Amino acid sequence: MLSKSNISFLQSLQQKKFRREHGLFLVEGFKSVSEFVNSAYQVQAVYYTAAMAPKMLNLSQKINSLEISSAIIEKISALKTPADVVATVSIPQWPALVHATLNKKFSIVLDGIQDPGNMGTIIRTADWFGIKNIICSEDCVEVYNPKVVQATMGSLSRVNVQYANLQDMLSKTKLPVYGALLDGENIYNTNFGTEGLIVMGNEGNGLTEKVKALVTKAITIPRGGEAESLNVAIATAIFCSEISRNNLK
Amino acid sequence: MLSKSNISFLQSLQQKKFRREHGLFLVEGFKSVSEFVNSAYQVQAVYYTAAMAPKMLNLSQKINSLEISSAIIEKISALKTPADVVATVSIPQWPALVHATLNKKFSIVLDGIQDPGNMGTIIRTADWFGIKNIICSEDCVEVYNPKVVQATMGSLSRVNVQYANLQDMLSKTKLPVYGALLDGENIYNTNFGTEGLIVMGNEGNGLTEKVKALVTKAITIPRGGEAESLNVAIATAIFCSEISRNNLK
Repeated sequence: MLSKSNISFLQSLQQKKFRREHGLFLVEGFKSVSEFVNSAYQVQAVYYTAAMAPKMLNLSQKINSLEISSAIIEKISALKTPADVVATVSIPQWPALVHATLNKKFSIVLDGIQDPGNMGTIIRTADWFGIKNIICSEDCVEVYNPKVVQATMGSLSRVNVQYANLQDMLSKTKLPVYGALLDGENIYNTNFGTEGLIVMGNEGNGLTEKVKALVTKAITIPRGGEAESLNVAIATAIFCSEISRNNLK
Repeated sequence: MLSKSNISFLQSLQQKKFRREHGLFLVEGFKSVSEFVNSAYQVQAVYYTAAMAPKMLNLSQKINSLEISSAIIEKISALKTPADVVATVSIPQWPALVHATLNKKFSIVLDGIQDPGNMGTIIRTADWFGIKNIICSEDCVEVYNPKVVQATMGSLSRVNVQYANLQDMLSKTKLPVYGALLDGENIYNTNFGTEGLIVMGNEGNGLTEKVKALVTKAITIPRGGEAESLNVAIATAIFCSEISRNNLK
């Protein structure tokens, strides 16, 4: 059984401050939890309701797990519709970025993404297209936020998401830096080659001036209609689709 | 000044039941409200705070408008961060769908989209790519839901969104019916021609069996990685991008 102080501890992980302090975050739902258990992440503990006990048999041999009541799992859950399985997972300690690991592939660089749903959807989309690395500016929304974790649908367990000083990082890279901008080359005529960084900006303001200055090729998704802009997760997906289409044909 | 009953009336429009009863919905934010005022929609009234009064000068000549306090606009607003301009707009009475209006262009058909954010993002994306018509199954989320209106960023004023019985509609169309399915032709090798319907399914379950039976060509976005699925707004955007890329090159 979970003590009151255990429950408070788990609830506290809904807040960034306590996630940082304890180095843990919450993953909810059987599918996502299974994916984290079978990944390089360290799953500390899994809590599940009686209804989930049969499904948990395989998983619970591998990890520290505990059956708890629905009432208690509801208290722990950060979701509107509480999951019936919740895990605590260690926040990975990323080593400093090694630029050579980004060679011969495409990676996504995010400059100030604020919306948890957008961040989660970008991670899920990257995972669909086989993009393994996302580098976020330090002011992006934290990826261990429960809303981000939820929106990734388990993809956070497979995509490396690191935070970095983008000015520093982009000034050191030898890869082409493709920036999503309103006045660039038409994406449908762009030859992306075989490697590069795709840089996407904040929802309201786009790329910061400092990052824009480090873009080596500005790229635009041409507009056929009248909307003033595209949602950033949508724009990212169109970039992913364009860089992947030749390989996926 | 607004009476208590006026305020209750405006607040009631946050709920579908009262939107239906009164045939009105709320649009929030200066930019969106301006776009509705300059569209075919009938804007009934605009409420704005003192801070917005100078910006409202042009708009308020065209329409019935009233300055109200921030405290009251907060009560009316359905958003977490209340807007400083809120309008009431008439829900249009769409005539029965005339199939010929869909010829020589692409339109989007949505089968059971539930998430307001997805619906709004799909409308905004359609507007970006110049797609003018979206036909929704009757069980899709209502587009006059404040979260949908907000996510469209004004695009709802420019895209025709109608509800229809999809089985009836798709069985009568003479256009190609392209369905987003997991086991179809590779989208990157598909020649979409110059007209057609792009049919997208529900977030969790995809297309219903009845609609799937009416698809004339199943299309797949090939996967280069491991995510189990793509978000439906992302998938719709990739279809929009593919059908537009030849025209936008």
